[in-house]
Parts: sequence; structure tokens; C-alpha cells
Amino acid sequence: MTEKRIDLNCDMGESYGVYTFGGDQELMNHITSANIACGAHAGDPNVMHQTVALAKKNGVSIGAHPGFPDIVGFGRRKIEMSPEEIYRWTIFQIGSLQAFCKAHHVALHHVKPHGALYHVAARNKEAAKAIAQAVYDVDNSLILYGLAGSELLTEGRKHGLTVASEVFADRTYQKDGTLTPRTEQNALIHDPHKAIEQVKRMIVHGKVEAVDGSQLTIEADTICIHGDNPQAISFAERLQKELIKLGIDVMAIGERC
Amino acid sequence: MTEKRIDLNCDMGESYGVYTFGGDQELMNHITSANIACGAHAGDPNVMHQTVALAKKNGVSIGAHPGFPDIVGFGRRKIEMSPEEIYRWTIFQIGSLQAFCKAHHVALHHVKPHGALYHVAARNKEAAKAIAQAVYDVDNSLILYGLAGSELLTEGRKHGLTVASEVFADRTYQKDGTLTPRTEQNALIHDPHKAIEQVKRMIVHGKVEAVDGSQLTIEADTICIHGDNPQAISFAERLQKELIKLGIDVMAIGERC
Amino acid sequence: MTEKRIDLNCDMGESYGVYTFGGDQELMNHITSANIACGAHAGDPNVMHQTVALAKKNGVSIGAHPGFPDIVGFGRRKIEMSPEEIYRWTIFQIGSLQAFCKAHHVALHHVKPHGALYHVAARNKEAAKAIAQAVYDVDNSLILYGLAGSELLTEGRKHGLTVASEVFADRTYQKDGTLTPRTEQNALIHDPHKAIEQVKRMIVHGKVEAVDGSQLTIEADTICIHGDNPQAISFAERLQKELIKLGIDVMAIGERC
Amino acid sequence: MTEKRIDLNCDMGESYGVYTFGGDQELMNHITSANIACGAHAGDPNVMHQTVALAKKNGVSIGAHPGFPDIVGFGRRKIEMSPEEIYRWTIFQIGSLQAFCKAHHVALHHVKPHGALYHVAARNKEAAKAIAQAVYDVDNSLILYGLAGSELLTEGRKHGLTVASEVFADRTYQKDGTLTPRTEQNALIHDPHKAIEQVKRMIVHGKVEAVDGSQLTIEADTICIHGDNPQAISFAERLQKELIKLGIDVMAIGERC
Repeated sequence: MTEKRIDLNCDMGESYGVYTFGGDQELMNHITSANIACGAHAGDPNVMHQTVALAKKNGVSIGAHPGFPDIVGFGRRKIEMSPEEIYRWTIFQIGSLQAFCKAHHVALHHVKPHGALYHVAARNKEAAKAIAQAVYDVDNSLILYGLAGSELLTEGRKHGLTVASEVFADRTYQKDGTLTPRTEQNALIHDPHKAIEQVKRMIVHGKVEAVDGSQLTIEADTICIHGDNPQAISFAERLQKELIKLGIDVMAIGERC
Repeated sequence: MTEKRIDLNCDMGESYGVYTFGGDQELMNHITSANIACGAHAGDPNVMHQTVALAKKNGVSIGAHPGFPDIVGFGRRKIEMSPEEIYRWTIFQIGSLQAFCKAHHVALHHVKPHGALYHVAARNKEAAKAIAQAVYDVDNSLILYGLAGSELLTEGRKHGLTVASEVFADRTYQKDGTLTPRTEQNALIHDPHKAIEQVKRMIVHGKVEAVDGSQLTIEADTICIHGDNPQAISFAERLQKELIKLGIDVMAIGERC
Repeated sequence: MTEKRIDLNCDMGESYGVYTFGGDQELMNHITSANIACGAHAGDPNVMHQTVALAKKNGVSIGAHPGFPDIVGFGRRKIEMSPEEIYRWTIFQIGSLQAFCKAHHVALHHVKPHGALYHVAARNKEAAKAIAQAVYDVDNSLILYGLAGSELLTEGRKHGLTVASEVFADRTYQKDGTLTPRTEQNALIHDPHKAIEQVKRMIVHGKVEAVDGSQLTIEADTICIHGDNPQAISFAERLQKELIKLGIDVMAIGERC
Repeated sequence: MTEKRIDLNCDMGESYGVYTFGGDQELMNHITSANIACGAHAGDPNVMHQTVALAKKNGVSIGAHPGFPDIVGFGRRKIEMSPEEIYRWTIFQIGSLQAFCKAHHVALHHVKPHGALYHVAARNKEAAKAIAQAVYDVDNSLILYGLAGSELLTEGRKHGLTVASEVFADRTYQKDGTLTPRTEQNALIHDPHKAIEQVKRMIVHGKVEAVDGSQLTIEADTICIHGDNPQAISFAERLQKELIKLGIDVMAIGERC
């Protein structure tokens, strides 16, 4: 019997100057991977420094979380950039976070794009390639996180990177494997029980039921926890318990049991 | 007889978006070290990428050139930051440039602060310490460039870093070893012949004559070439020739003859 | 007997993008003047638009709240700017807020500098003059708010502007009339009763007791309410009640009874 | 016989901090309308102040030139913004420029969107409506400049604004009246003679020949002069002479002969 394991990741370090965002302090010990903003869509050097320290203290794997350069839009608005620009902005952001990791004597573990960049990288092959190349060129041991079934994972694998296929507990899926857009009524799964059931099935059986009832094959390496959700902590706790009951190891990608 | 050698450094990569600044392309093969802006006072990921490539192609040593985060002020205005903030902003900037070095398979060689940060680091012990600590924490093999006689060099040495003492060909010195402020009439040496003589004396004899006629002891490891000066190229060429005539090796700090 | 009146002002509209700051919604109906951030130290066009609408709805006088251009530092760090630059950045910020007032068919009422710019304008005559001139040049009917006894008020009067002398309920004063710096232990008045007594005495008798026990003459036109203080609402309510009991009208500067 | 007249407009004030862009000083006395950047895609308060002064000195009509907030991309990259955001960012930018006009005792005359915002406003009805509404709400006497045949002009007219239909001397047209994209070989008219002939025909006959040979009806109120083109001055001079020879008045929109 194959070993079952899962990573719980969460966006972190998205405060900025006097502005706080998310409950990093409380949430950090309920996850296994932290995607830390790199100053482009959120985060500043103070926040990056403190968030790396906090992740290290909690034994959480640290990832760079590059986004479109747009603090006022929080990286949620697509900016029309060429693949070359995406490549270079990704290098910039990985590098700045990696320096804080060095200063804290901890390794950078992964890269997960943020917001609009994440969605562009899921669908657009050229953008996906640019990001995969940037990760490879800075440090080819970094793990690339992307949406299950996305162009980003395909390009990551082509570049020889280890990839992590991300699934969502609280989002519904379309029959083509994409997430139901938030503009649609049935985009979100509000019932924690249903959300946990969806996750368990994805991990144990590699399947998810789409909104039209069809059964999709899905690879689940890591689950996205939404840190700006007030229920995030209780959900993460409950999810961990249920997964452990099933004999599923909750740990960062690549970590040894 | 001791070997005499000198480095010629120049600020580079200070363009931004559509805006060009300095004659990087022409000047790069007349210098031995390039201080490349890191996006805080100037430079953006496109510019950083291209400038690292240009420096590599010309065999020029690459340095990070961190400044106060202030594009519109070009890092020339002091921003009241705590030492902790200076430490973190310096780490951020070194890291982002280092990532471009990795992508180009070339080593980052040194760090030289820019503009107002350079001047603050020359006089303010706490700021100097913050920068030295940041350099040390990111990579203790990096060479720290600072004004001859500055607090920055003192703190760099205390941290065990290799330091490079920077002198100016075209600036006059006060009797306390500081540069005559640009607001004073006799701040600049406009005659290239005099500028070259000042440099030669600093390198060969370790002396410079202050504006009041007193003779100062000065350590000259590297000379600052002002890239935004239209005469920069012809001056750099002439300076190199004269130095070579004297048997002085013009090469980056730490490079083998 | 002279009529006694006082204005209660509060910084507002200091959110930015997804980041919220202060309790504007709750606090707006407890004040008489709102100083609305103009996008330089905080605020963005969405926030400015909504805050002007909120102030209008509550019948609160609207002021521009210009600061140093530094979102990540929230305008709390001094940036070394020439008086010319301060003049131009002030014009820029007043103008952008005034346009939102036009769009909402409401008049801009006053200008109060923010954070480090407020403190610079209190002590530095050239900076104070630059701000007064900027206000005058954009609209000489605007009222200039500044620290009681500050250079800013002096310069405002010289320029023929109506000025409002600002006092603090919860801060102690030095014998020279300046605020005790926050770094000192006795800077803040934590007891609401004492704070209200200080205010009442300033309004009714034009006097305040300095930390050394000396009695200072002080002009009190407007009281600063700190919106980021969780007790702000209850304090503002209690203060209003006590002032009204004394027959003091709580209303914006220039408003008719 | 109807009076024939034309306006020559040019983007101005697109420098930023130490970075210069365009030949404002030389070009200003060859045009009749200046579109002045408002700090979002280019321009800063110093540049805005100086450019308004320069336009006033040359008797050139002053327009606000709002763009997407993106200095590093110079407003040439589309940012996905809602119509509400476009409305608010446009208000913000008009207001800041209008304040400099007040400080210089000169009226703001028009508004012309910049770069990607101009193109979005040409095709996207919702964005066009947002901009027209913003102009109307700040000052309904402002003239709205837009591409001939664009949604922006349609929306401007619907809002009751005076509009100016912009044509290009050096660009070719598609049979649907849009500009040939710059990515196509025949997008630009390099021959100044042909460019001038195209303009003359547009003004006198209200016609332009599309790339497929078809004859289009076009309304020409103002011609765009590209200030970053080294030939801009000589072209503007020659164009003016030829137009005057034909009895066409070269003057700003709304100006009396």
C-alpha cells in the first residue's frame, strides 16, 4: 500500500507597513508550508524578515510567493506583461525572499505564484514557462506549486522541477478541472464537513466530483488554506485531525516521515 | 616592493522602465566593478537582468547597490529609517540582485550603498553596522565598499568582511578626511589632469592634500567613476593608461593578477 | 461673554487597497472635521472616494491630509525634501482630494498635514511657509490646521489664511509649548478624565499645565481625536457630552451656530 | 464656406524624478494643446508644476493626461480595473493637475487618457463611460479628447461634454476606422509628405484612405504629435506651414480665432 501524505499551505506575510493582513501568528502552527509575499503585491522587508522568522520557529517550509507588482491591487488584477517581464519579476522576488532565508539560516523550499499571476500561470503556457524557467534558473531544487492540472505544473515538470499539485477544500470544480469562478453562486463550499470530505476523497482516491456530477481525476499534493478567512484556524485543525485519523501524513512536500 | 593595484567602480543599471540613465553600454568596458541598482532607488527587474548580463559579458565584477526606497528621489534624499529597517531593506536588495547573478551563472562580488544611504553609512555608526550585518548575514564573502575612513568600513572590518576603501578623483577633501560638500565652490576638481594626479598620489603614496593644504593619509582600493558625467569614458580611459604606465594593476578587488 | 466653541478632528481615509486602517465608519458621526488622506502616505482613489462620501453623509467638514509620499512608512518617516518639493507635493495632494469633493458636490474645508510632515511644519519655518503657500495658491478660502504655537500657524496667518490651532487631549506639554515626545514616559495621558479636564481648561481658560507645573497660554480651536485608538469612540462621545454641558459648541471651524 | 481649423496636441510632462523624457522645452511652442501626465504613469509634482508653467508661458492649452497607475510600465500595460476604479483614478488625476493650474492662474482645458487607458477607452464602453463620467463630475466644461470614432467620444457626447476627435498623421487606418496595430508592417507612415497629405485630406474633406484602399469618413479636431520622436519638431513646423497655406487655422479646441 502506498503511503498517503498531504501538505497544508497558506499565504503569509501579506501585511504592509502599518497595515496588517491575515492571522499569520495564530495560523502558522496549523500549516506545513508558508507562501511568503515578496514585496511586489504585499509584504515589505520588515514583514518578510519577521515572517521568515515565524515560519522557521514553527518548523514550517518557506516558499516565495511572487505576484504582479501592484500593492494597491494586492496582485489580484492582471497586468499585461510579456513572458520576459514575468520571468524577470519572478527572479527578483524569489531572490529577495531567499536572502531573508539565508539571514535566518533556513532553506527556501518552494515557489507559489500569487493571485492574478497564479491564474495566468494556470492557463497561459508562455507565462507558465517563464515562471518555471525563473524558478529553475535561480535554484532548481525549489519545488513549484501550482493548480492541479495547470500549465504551470506541466511547464515545471518539463523544466525538471519537482512540482506540487494544489487542490482546494472549499472550492468547487468544473468538468474541465478548473475552479468554478467566484462570480458563480456554487463556487464556494461553505460546509466544512463537505470541504473535508472533498479533500479526503482527493487524497485517498485521486478523484473529485465536478459541479455537473462528473468524476475527475485529480492529483493532490498540497491543500490551500485561506488565511484571510476567520474560520481558517478551526478548519485547519479539524482537517488535520480527520486526515491523521485516515493515516494520512500531514507534512511539507519532500519532507521525510 | 609591494604590488600596487586599483579598482575602478561605477554605478550601473540605474535606468527605470522607459527611462534611461547613464551610459552603461559604453562605459562598462572601461571599469572593473559595477554597482548595480536593485530596484529601490532605481533599476527594475528588466534593467537588473540586462545590466548583470552586460557586466558578465565585459568581465566586470558585479556589486549590489542598495539605496533608500525612493524612485522619484533617486535615493538621494535621506529617509528617516531605524537601523533595523536599513538592515532589512539591505538584505532585500542584495537578495534580488543575487538572484539575477544566479540566473546568469556569475557570482555577486560586492555591495556598495547608494546616494543618501552611502552618506548616512559613512557617518552614522548604527546605520553602518546595520548594513555590514546585512551583508554578512546574506553572504559573508561579499566585499563591502565604502568611503575611505568611513564608519561603514570600520563596521565592515569588525564584522570580518573584506572591505574596499573608496576614493574620488574629482572631489576635494576636507582636513578631517570627508569630502567637501557639493554646495561649496571648491568641491569638484574639473581639471582631468589634477584629478588623475590626485588619484596617482593616493594609490602610490597613500596621501591626499586637503583643501587647507594639510596632507592626509588615505587608503585607496577603488575609485568611483561618475557614469552620468559625459566625460566619464574619456576620463576612465586616460586614467587607466596613466595608472598602467606607473605599473599599477587596474583590476577588481580580490581578483588575481 | 464670548461664545466658546471647539472642533473635533480626526484622520480618516487611511486605508489602502485591501488594507483597512481605523474605524472610519463608526467614528465619523462623533467628529466635526475629517482629515482625509490623499494617496501619498495612505489612501487610494477608492478610499478617497468612499471617505468623502461618508464625511458628506455625516455632515462632517472635509480636509485634505497631505503627507510625505511613503505608503510603506505611512508618512511617519521624515523624507529630506526641499521647501519647493514640499510646496508641490502639497498642491498635488490638495488637488486630488478636491476633485473628489467636486464629484460629491461638497466643498473642501481645510488642510492638515500628516505625521512627519505635520511635525516638520511645526518647527521648520521654510517647510511651514511652503505648505501655507501651497494652500493659499490652490484655494485661499481653505482653513489651515496646525499644532498650537507652531510655525505652520504663524506662516498661515502671514499668508492671510484662516488657521485652526490644534490641541491634544491625551498628550502632555513641555514648558516651551511643544508636545512631550512619545519616547518619554509621561508623554501620554491615559486617564480619560484627566484628558477631558485638560481640554476643558484649554477651551475655557486658554491655559494648559506643562509637565514641569508651569502654566502655558494655549489657543484651542480644534482637538485631535486618534482614530486608531480603540477607545476613540467612547472618548469622543464622553468629551462631547462634557463640553456641551459647559455650554461649548462642538462644531467645525467657520460653521455658523 | 465653413471655417477649417485644427488643434495640434502632444503628451508632455512625462519625465519622473531625475529621469527626463521627451523634448518638452523645444516642442511646446510648436503645439496648441499639451496633455500633461498626472503622476500615475509618469510625471511627479515637480514635473507637473514645471510643465504647467511651461505650457502657460507658451500659451498652450493644458489638458490632464490620466493613465493606469504604473510608472515602471509607463501606463502602456493594461491593468485589469473595474469601471469604478477607472472612474476614481481618473478623478484623482484630473484633480491633482487642476490644482497646479490653479496655482498658476490658468484654466484646465481638456482631458486625454494615456497609453493603455486610451486604447481601452476607445473600445470598451464601460471604461469609456467611467472616464466621461469622471470628467463630467470634476468639471463639465472640460473637453474630452479621444480617438476618432471611439467609444470614448460617444460616451463623452452622451454625457454632454464637448469632445475632440483625434487623428494621427503618421499612422495608417484599418477599414473599420481603427489604427493598424504597431505590430503590423504597414502601421506607420514614415514619409512626412504622405503624413501631411493624410492630415490635409482628413481636415479638408473629412476622409482617410484605409490600408485596403477603402475611403473612410473621419472627423479631425486634433492631431497627435509624438513628442518622443526626434523628428517631432521639424514635422510639427512643416505641418503647421502647410495647413496655414490651405487657410486652416491651427489653434486649440474652443479657442476664438
